[in-house]
Amino acid sequence: MSGWITEKGPQNEIVLSSRIRLARNLKDTPFPIYLKEAQSDKVVDSVKSPFANTLNRDYYLYNMDKTDLLDKQILLERHLISKELVKSNSGAAIISKDDIISIMVNEEDHIRIQAILPGLQIMEAWKLADGIDNMLEEQLDYAYDEKLGYLTCCPTNVGTGMRASSMVHLPALNLTGSIGKILQTVTQIGLTIRGLYGEGTEILGNLFQISNQITLGPTEEEIIDNTNGVTNQIIEKEREARNILLNSNRIQLEDKILRSWGILRNAKIITSQECMKLLSDIRLGVDLDIIKGLSISTINEIMIDTQSAGISKYAKKELTAEVCDILRAQIIKEKLC
Amino acid sequence: MSGWITEKGPQNEIVLSSRIRLARNLKDTPFPIYLKEAQSDKVVDSVKSPFANTLNRDYYLYNMDKTDLLDKQILLERHLISKELVKSNSGAAIISKDDIISIMVNEEDHIRIQAILPGLQIMEAWKLADGIDNMLEEQLDYAYDEKLGYLTCCPTNVGTGMRASSMVHLPALNLTGSIGKILQTVTQIGLTIRGLYGEGTEILGNLFQISNQITLGPTEEEIIDNTNGVTNQIIEKEREARNILLNSNRIQLEDKILRSWGILRNAKIITSQECMKLLSDIRLGVDLDIIKGLSISTINEIMIDTQSAGISKYAKKELTAEVCDILRAQIIKEKLC
Repeated sequence: MSGWITEKGPQNEIVLSSRIRLARNLKDTPFPIYLKEAQSDKVVDSVKSPFANTLNRDYYLYNMDKTDLLDKQILLERHLISKELVKSNSGAAIISKDDIISIMVNEEDHIRIQAILPGLQIMEAWKLADGIDNMLEEQLDYAYDEKLGYLTCCPTNVGTGMRASSMVHLPALNLTGSIGKILQTVTQIGLTIRGLYGEGTEILGNLFQISNQITLGPTEEEIIDNTNGVTNQIIEKEREARNILLNSNRIQLEDKILRSWGILRNAKIITSQECMKLLSDIRLGVDLDIIKGLSISTINEIMIDTQSAGISKYAKKELTAEVCDILRAQIIKEKLC
Repeated sequence: MSGWITEKGPQNEIVLSSRIRLARNLKDTPFPIYLKEAQSDKVVDSVKSPFANTLNRDYYLYNMDKTDLLDKQILLERHLISKELVKSNSGAAIISKDDIISIMVNEEDHIRIQAILPGLQIMEAWKLADGIDNMLEEQLDYAYDEKLGYLTCCPTNVGTGMRASSMVHLPALNLTGSIGKILQTVTQIGLTIRGLYGEGTEILGNLFQISNQITLGPTEEEIIDNTNGVTNQIIEKEREARNILLNSNRIQLEDKILRSWGILRNAKIITSQECMKLLSDIRLGVDLDIIKGLSISTINEIMIDTQSAGISKYAKKELTAEVCDILRAQIIKEKLC
């Protein structure tokens, strides 16, 4: 089970997870998009070699061409690989046993190091990712330019090659209608807002991924400080909005949350989209003590396990959308009742 | 507690209650609408006198001018008096301890005898009403015409003065969309369809009151046979529709019913209209064994106790609609959890 899903972290009532991603490339090697099969394999071997002593013990290697589509999708749903890597046949992923570290090989760049932790711990995630980065750099020659920094396939990643992000749950800001203005402000100060599965994905269940837009210019620490600071400000705004709702509309809020709680435990058919909406309500309910005896980690587990691939894995076969919606309701009931 | 609400009767899965109402008037006395106060009182005294030995033991008398508005509304919500009598100051009601018999005095007619039983027992209700009618006729002179029969204030009641009705729950016919055609057919063969509280009231919670339109011409037995026969045919159609839904859309039906079941036990605010809708779903759920361990009488009690006056009585004060919706949810939870 993924570390950020089941473990607790600071400010976990609002921040689901913090993530650092570093983009790195090997010197004198074409970017993955231009690689021939043999060259791709060589890149995978190079990145694998520093893990020689820890592979199959602390880390596992997944070659995309040898991994079941269903297993790849499960890694995707657990935020351990990207949807681009799922489609790739020449890529690979090296993932730590506790699901905190994942290194994608031959995605957009040769190497994408990710560290993901529960709650607001961007700096801690950075330390973990930086440790892996240093370990790799000892054995590999990175494509690095004195003036530009780390070179990347897409120019938007050049420099630090870093994306620092937090995944925040903002139901009260949405209910009070302040969310639009806040997201606009965040964008204006150079950060980006994305959905649960990164770039171009829909915003579901009031979950927003806040991350830096700029990688070239500021130092890693500056990027982290900025993302961290903005996340803290948004947390503050969300807490204010939760208090406003509690003070002015407590019974309406309780009604909304408890209805979702009733539906979640009783429905026989739940679409993925409705599930995210209901989970958002009960996540808020747990924080406000309207729902008792339920842990955030159970909510996280349901959120991850009820994605399509998770359900297919549970059913041990490919499923139609209709059957998926029925099984989703069944899995939720097993977790909650 | 009213007999039909808590007791079981034949075909109770579909028929809530059967009712007979007889309209009678006193000879040589103006209809209530033309009566002066002293004359009204005399009518009440006349109707009261046959109950001299049973009053305050098997029957209770409610003089409308001495009864709290709230108590009158509760009698209305329990189907023991009409909304016209609630408004009256010169009327009265004599109601049996078990709430099966009620005699309204100075409503539209001098006397309105009602017998109401659980399930489909129109003939049994008729026997009870007829017994009261005979007892009264021994001591009172009715306005009766050899050719026309019993004379009534409104010509639509002349003849037998009888309305025979059944209250049926038809959710499956509504879901399958057949209800419109069936109601149309019922109307074409001389019966009337009304809502829960009689003439001009809204149809709520899939509850339909089927009753005879014609009182002059056919005998009492013919009216009863006809209403009974049509009710049986509608029961048959509703059972067919329930089977169709179970066979073709079981999971969707279970989902609908269990969502309502979840909302009913968890919501903090429930309007009267939503309550009727949710109760309709769980009433169907109990019949189809989708909801277990819940009795029809609990559903009936909730349906009656969550009307506005019932809630005010519970709260021991007059309430705003908003507070009413909150208390309704509370009462339901107490009954169900």
